[in-house]
Amino acid sequence: MVSLKLSSFTHFFSTPSTTAISHRSPIILRRRFRQPLAANFSAKATAAETTKDKVDNSKNKVPDRVITPRSQDFNAWYLDIIAHAELADYGPVRGTMVIRPYGYAIWESIQEYLNVKFKETGHSNMYFPQFIPYSFIEKEASHVEGFSPELAVVTIGGGKELEEKLVVRPTSETIVNHMFTQWIHSYRDLPLLINQWANVTRWEMRTKPFVRTLEFLWQEGHTAHSTPEEAENEAKQMIDIYTRFSYEQAAIPVITGRKSKVETFAGACKTYTIEAMMGDRKALQAGTSHNLGQNFSRAFDTQFTDENGQREYIWQTSWAVSTRFVGGIIMTHGDDAGLMLPPKIAPIQVVIVPIWKKDDEKMTVLNAALSVKEGLQNSGIKVKLDDSDQRTPGWKFNFWEMKGVPLRIEIGPRDVSSASVVLSRRDIPGKQGKLFGIPMEPSILEACVKDKLDEIQSSLLERAIAFRDSDEDELKVKEETGATIRCFPFEQPQGIKRCLMTGDPAEEVAIFAKSY
Amino acid sequence: MVSLKLSSFTHFFSTPSTTAISHRSPIILRRRFRQPLAANFSAKATAAETTKDKVDNSKNKVPDRVITPRSQDFNAWYLDIIAHAELADYGPVRGTMVIRPYGYAIWESIQEYLNVKFKETGHSNMYFPQFIPYSFIEKEASHVEGFSPELAVVTIGGGKELEEKLVVRPTSETIVNHMFTQWIHSYRDLPLLINQWANVTRWEMRTKPFVRTLEFLWQEGHTAHSTPEEAENEAKQMIDIYTRFSYEQAAIPVITGRKSKVETFAGACKTYTIEAMMGDRKALQAGTSHNLGQNFSRAFDTQFTDENGQREYIWQTSWAVSTRFVGGIIMTHGDDAGLMLPPKIAPIQVVIVPIWKKDDEKMTVLNAALSVKEGLQNSGIKVKLDDSDQRTPGWKFNFWEMKGVPLRIEIGPRDVSSASVVLSRRDIPGKQGKLFGIPMEPSILEACVKDKLDEIQSSLLERAIAFRDSDEDELKVKEETGATIRCFPFEQPQGIKRCLMTGDPAEEVAIFAKSY
Repeated sequence: MVSLKLSSFTHFFSTPSTTAISHRSPIILRRRFRQPLAANFSAKATAAETTKDKVDNSKNKVPDRVITPRSQDFNAWYLDIIAHAELADYGPVRGTMVIRPYGYAIWESIQEYLNVKFKETGHSNMYFPQFIPYSFIEKEASHVEGFSPELAVVTIGGGKELEEKLVVRPTSETIVNHMFTQWIHSYRDLPLLINQWANVTRWEMRTKPFVRTLEFLWQEGHTAHSTPEEAENEAKQMIDIYTRFSYEQAAIPVITGRKSKVETFAGACKTYTIEAMMGDRKALQAGTSHNLGQNFSRAFDTQFTDENGQREYIWQTSWAVSTRFVGGIIMTHGDDAGLMLPPKIAPIQVVIVPIWKKDDEKMTVLNAALSVKEGLQNSGIKVKLDDSDQRTPGWKFNFWEMKGVPLRIEIGPRDVSSASVVLSRRDIPGKQGKLFGIPMEPSILEACVKDKLDEIQSSLLERAIAFRDSDEDELKVKEETGATIRCFPFEQPQGIKRCLMTGDPAEEVAIFAKSY
Repeated sequence: MVSLKLSSFTHFFSTPSTTAISHRSPIILRRRFRQPLAANFSAKATAAETTKDKVDNSKNKVPDRVITPRSQDFNAWYLDIIAHAELADYGPVRGTMVIRPYGYAIWESIQEYLNVKFKETGHSNMYFPQFIPYSFIEKEASHVEGFSPELAVVTIGGGKELEEKLVVRPTSETIVNHMFTQWIHSYRDLPLLINQWANVTRWEMRTKPFVRTLEFLWQEGHTAHSTPEEAENEAKQMIDIYTRFSYEQAAIPVITGRKSKVETFAGACKTYTIEAMMGDRKALQAGTSHNLGQNFSRAFDTQFTDENGQREYIWQTSWAVSTRFVGGIIMTHGDDAGLMLPPKIAPIQVVIVPIWKKDDEKMTVLNAALSVKEGLQNSGIKVKLDDSDQRTPGWKFNFWEMKGVPLRIEIGPRDVSSASVVLSRRDIPGKQGKLFGIPMEPSILEACVKDKLDEIQSSLLERAIAFRDSDEDELKVKEETGATIRCFPFEQPQGIKRCLMTGDPAEEVAIFAKSY
């Protein structure tokens, strides 16, 4: 387990007080605290396209100019990055999103890591149909209360009105339990550990690319166990995998903990969460793991025969990370120049920009650049050579900075003469981020590049931790304007705890923040 | 390009005669020739479950007994394999399928290979929303004619009747073109080469697991080009990749060629296909690549400015392989004992079955088995050790044969004494498929196992080719009962061709077969 350093982000105290509201739907309560988004999804699309045309038609226009400064308008900045770094675009149906190749490649990095971890911990991938009979959703009381307001419903199939309406899955617990009931007979069939990579649909009213869209991509794990302890361990193991991923790959210092009753998943006993703090100091729920107890097994009559021949309901978990995580990466690391990607999840880790003025220099420089590219590629580094002559080197510098590529290699005629290159770090602007005279000699250059990528990876995490733990006052002010409990962190401070509002002794520390 | 050997499968001649029917919908015409399926989807599910219970409750019941012999009833045999090898199960909605871990792992093998090939040929993955405004489907005349009878339609979202009905994608050409129109401005934006891995929905009336389900998984490639030649080359390149996959990975000797006008995709100018012959001598369309010409770009006004400043419609292709391919693998290689998987796509390539009688033998045998397993695993072989003491070795032999595992390693006390193992090939039954006294010494054993897996891979392909090219008379008889043109093969025989029916000179050889 990664060590979680808690300071200012964790200084609001509360006693869990849930009895009065436990009958309310968590989903509905949660929505009440959501912030209206400044930009209209569709209107913004048109604006973005117009700006894009401008970029396309002016060869030397510096592309970072088109991005609203982050400090000026965080939301506009976010949407500008998504448009100009070509991460996503707006689909024709309100609130839907087209994930473009560069954005999808970030999702693929997330998938590659998690898929391996899921398999290492004994889970198998499979696939459940996305159409769920409406009656299934109604079987678990709090589940239907939470999800029924946001369902997309198929009523016509093959030209005919359907006898039973079909729900397009908002999540799969119900259909999973329907199948588990058929597959699980005895304790020998347990634990059953599965996962699926799929699309899900939730009819959200306020949408924002990656963060909240009508349809999104995710993985959903579903497991069945013979004891409550095993289910609890599983739920914790999976939130731990998400935590490690956040720290070690995405360089996001999430706070891991338990959700309050109000914020617990509709149908779960306990929800564990990783909460990430975005650049505007709002919290983003970046992944959750639910201990479902026997809620769904009782609703779907999913029983097994234990070692003593007794019939018992199974104990279950489910856990998910979605394309929302891509939004979290943008909002954690980006700056005024655009996107900034941690090397471990960057689709392009190194971009090579060749520089020439005269025609006779061009071939020499391009040959050197190509050979540098091949060397790096062979040593497993994701590298792109931008050899187009449509744009100036200055334009390319800005463009690839805006796309968040961690490291740039510059090669000009003088560098070729001295058999060296210039490295430039995305995370340190200007001359301070440059390293001159790095030998082109493949073994030296490759070691140096890998070294720098590691440094950038660490530096992004350190910076995000420092940001998360600074500016207590600002966070306090934000909280007073309507923050919610994000979680009860696993790591609790020592000493006596008191409630912020009443001064009474408190059992646990809770994290409050405004959330996406 | 793999060499295609054509003989008996290619002995029906025809002149393409399309004018009279070109105004008809290819989809509707195609359906007319489909064979009714013997088994009712849902009724069969119940039968399968009942049989499964029997297996679970009788420790030593030989599992292959539960599979209907292939020669007796091909369709029942197919459904039995799917149930007992735990490849898939029936979803709660008619015609939907749950892909279980073992079946999904075969799909993952397909994905891994194709995904690499797509990227090597310059394609990027991305993701389009699955909800398509109904009006989009209506824009391309033959597209709507082909797909409108099989649409699933969302009419309610977030509890409200929608203003415009939404189609759950049956394929994505329309929404892709809607987006291409926004992204493509000049010839510099071309070619645009993308792919998505996604689920699609077609409201089929007659369904069969993997072969035809309401919802299935696939990849769909979509490309845009500035010239018709480039689009044609792309369409051919992709059908070539599918052909190589079929031969080299799936050991299926498909016949690659062009579809007749009637069988061409709704909205395409030309459809290339790979046609596979199943164990019952019916053809299975296992993958298609379409040259869409300018049909969709005209309907969606997708234009670009060429190098001379002229506005032109783009030229397009699309191409797809789906989970249907898993059905093709089952029906090509399976036999009375169950599934038979080519090593290159088998989720488990080698199963180790330890054999002991006395308790004091158990530990020795299991230790040896474990060490053999680790050695093979480290050399990249997908290996499973079945060390459960719930079943006898004989039961395990039959079970893993039924699951189609290409190679079995048997280790008993005597083998441990002589530091050797017994290998047993899935594709050669009985003693003839056994190799005795193979040294346990890791380097020798691993080389031997790899060698045998290669042999099995080749042998499966050779056997499938021999089967495809044999029994001309039987094929002729089948054809006379209602076969359709599967394709005009790229490889045409030499000499004068005549029409089978009229005796008139013919231009091209066509493949006829009954199809799934």
